[in-house]
Amino acid sequence: MALVVQKYGGTSVGDAERIRAVADHVARTRAAGDQVVVVVSAMGKSTDDLLRLAGEVSPTRPPRELDMLLTAGERISMALVSMALADHGVESASFTGSQAGIITDTDHTRAKILEIRPNRVREALAEGLTPVVAGFQGVSTERDITTLGRGGSDVTAVALAAALGADVCEIYTDVTGVFSADPRVVSKARRLAKVSFDEMLEIAATGGRVLMLRSVEFARRHRVPLHVRSSFTWEPGTWIVEEDPTMEEAVVSAVTDDTSEAKITVGGVPDRPGVAARLFRELANRSVNVDMIVQNTGTNGLTDISFTVAQTDLALAREVCETVRAEIGAAEVSSDSQIGRVSIVGAGMKSSPGITALMFETLSSHGINIEMISTSSIRISCVVRADRVAEAVRHLHTAFGLDAVRGE
Amino acid sequence: MALVVQKYGGTSVGDAERIRAVADHVARTRAAGDQVVVVVSAMGKSTDDLLRLAGEVSPTRPPRELDMLLTAGERISMALVSMALADHGVESASFTGSQAGIITDTDHTRAKILEIRPNRVREALAEGLTPVVAGFQGVSTERDITTLGRGGSDVTAVALAAALGADVCEIYTDVTGVFSADPRVVSKARRLAKVSFDEMLEIAATGGRVLMLRSVEFARRHRVPLHVRSSFTWEPGTWIVEEDPTMEEAVVSAVTDDTSEAKITVGGVPDRPGVAARLFRELANRSVNVDMIVQNTGTNGLTDISFTVAQTDLALAREVCETVRAEIGAAEVSSDSQIGRVSIVGAGMKSSPGITALMFETLSSHGINIEMISTSSIRISCVVRADRVAEAVRHLHTAFGLDAVRGE
Repeated sequence: MALVVQKYGGTSVGDAERIRAVADHVARTRAAGDQVVVVVSAMGKSTDDLLRLAGEVSPTRPPRELDMLLTAGERISMALVSMALADHGVESASFTGSQAGIITDTDHTRAKILEIRPNRVREALAEGLTPVVAGFQGVSTERDITTLGRGGSDVTAVALAAALGADVCEIYTDVTGVFSADPRVVSKARRLAKVSFDEMLEIAATGGRVLMLRSVEFARRHRVPLHVRSSFTWEPGTWIVEEDPTMEEAVVSAVTDDTSEAKITVGGVPDRPGVAARLFRELANRSVNVDMIVQNTGTNGLTDISFTVAQTDLALAREVCETVRAEIGAAEVSSDSQIGRVSIVGAGMKSSPGITALMFETLSSHGINIEMISTSSIRISCVVRADRVAEAVRHLHTAFGLDAVRGE
Repeated sequence: MALVVQKYGGTSVGDAERIRAVADHVARTRAAGDQVVVVVSAMGKSTDDLLRLAGEVSPTRPPRELDMLLTAGERISMALVSMALADHGVESASFTGSQAGIITDTDHTRAKILEIRPNRVREALAEGLTPVVAGFQGVSTERDITTLGRGGSDVTAVALAAALGADVCEIYTDVTGVFSADPRVVSKARRLAKVSFDEMLEIAATGGRVLMLRSVEFARRHRVPLHVRSSFTWEPGTWIVEEDPTMEEAVVSAVTDDTSEAKITVGGVPDRPGVAARLFRELANRSVNVDMIVQNTGTNGLTDISFTVAQTDLALAREVCETVRAEIGAAEVSSDSQIGRVSIVGAGMKSSPGITALMFETLSSHGINIEMISTSSIRISCVVRADRVAEAVRHLHTAFGLDAVRGE
């Protein structure tokens, strides 16, 4: 008998029919002899509806009250899932984040989990019930209701799986798994049967939309096997597991793309110690997340520093740069939001020479100019013009042999 | 500085505009120097929407999960009211029933309050905040979320006012107060400026729709002055207070009507001790609430027992009577749902002879036949044909001098 945490996202519980389908699947899992803990998001558009309502009521939205409002969403979906389970003969009990012991810090709208005390969930399991837990929400050390921010329901599921010692955390969504590239960009993209945590981290960080970086990090740290799969087809999806040293690793598992960032260049920066540190410390102080950073070799004692930020942070980042520019005596600040990043990710890259060369050759042979480069041991990312990204992804997918069936 | 509990019902927070109006009124109350604790119901039709959704998902609705579902309603309205208050410069904090310390028994969907531990509400007040509390809901001794059933938000408000020692509990609704008769029936009906708890209990019990019996009983027991008023006109409404022995009491304050009941007659009942007890014990065991009971004087050792029940309980009550009929050797069970009850209520009735006579004369002079009679020290009720009820109310309203302005 395995203990399975099943997390269902917003589209998976989007309407009455989907909720009944979820209950049916949970009932089948139970009938197969496994114990199940269900974690649910709010129904499809309900969060948007609540935000629209808040907008009608007041331009002022204290974060504590915004959290109180939004957590009504999971409350509704979890109660409905429990009712549907009852209708399928599965006795269950729903628990809010607070009741499930999801203790967070007091940072409303993007709280972090500090501790899980899932006593009531454990008791329910011991009584033979199927607990249904609200994702995305918790209770702070000040006893106020909090939400975990984007991707929060996945984090709840993974954290609960870790705390309960679950055998697997299944993430049900509207796609069938993690793909070798975005299927909307690459028609020949393949579902990956298995990827390592490290690969998944890189995929999530470079544009893979299925899982948020945060929940993958949590799963990796607590060694919780993830299984990303579809609640529409119910077919087996992608397993995200610890790297198995005996298994042969794909050199490149996936090609990812991301056009949500912009590039900022601070030009004519005096090339002396501490200057870059000053700039990035100030950006960090203003909560601007910097992604790729490239500093050219200086000439005449001057250098250029380029980095990417989310387009939504561009205005703030420019403002910070302008302030720091005067202080450090740099010449100018420019920005460019017409960029995109294309990355290749693969755990086998570590032991395979020539990967970088093949990537650059592939892009250049198609006349795609590389503007920035960054690498990790299992990833290479290139910044190119935004309007060449899709093309770049397709060529790389072919060049690294991903068009052929693999891994299934 | 007074402490005022202000309870806003579903229509009072029915949409964004109404919620802003509520926030404006709370801000004015605060500006006048009073402390306010706000208690809110779910927005207008939101409870119906949630029930409809539940109906789409599952015919099975475990009461625990139904409570979890429905309590999302107040969560939404209380967060929105808090946001609107922030927008009006009033710092507030919303609290669920559980956070406000509303401890109930475990009888889901109609829980009773066992205890109030309003520590967090008190702390918020001490910090100068305006607490916004979810009505209708609590947490059980088993730590599960419960709802208080019909009129539950009023009960929350009154209970909280009692626990906090509030100076008044204001019940805001979509009518301007308690009337001398239903204004839809009697065009000359007047708003009452003041009624005693005893009168209000009788009015609520005999068809007055403004307050539920339960919250009036609670207010009376804990001596919490109530003020029922409109959240649309904001004018002073009706005060419900302890009887003041020095004040001259109206002989008749109000004429009420109720056509929601049906009459059951068990005929040919052996007239011996214990027979009626057997019948009503069995009805109580099956949770049938019996209202008026009349037993005719027996002839030939046989008697008839008639009583009224809610029409929704009629089928069950008939079934119980049929079972008991055989056992006690009664002749027959008949029922009639075309009845209505008209009542006059007045604290001054106790010391005014001739009231009963005037009531009967008024009805008979208009050819309205009286089928059953029941009285208390401050109320007389008559069962008449349902289609004569409106007419009866109008004639009584005139006969007892209520058409003239009084009490304002």
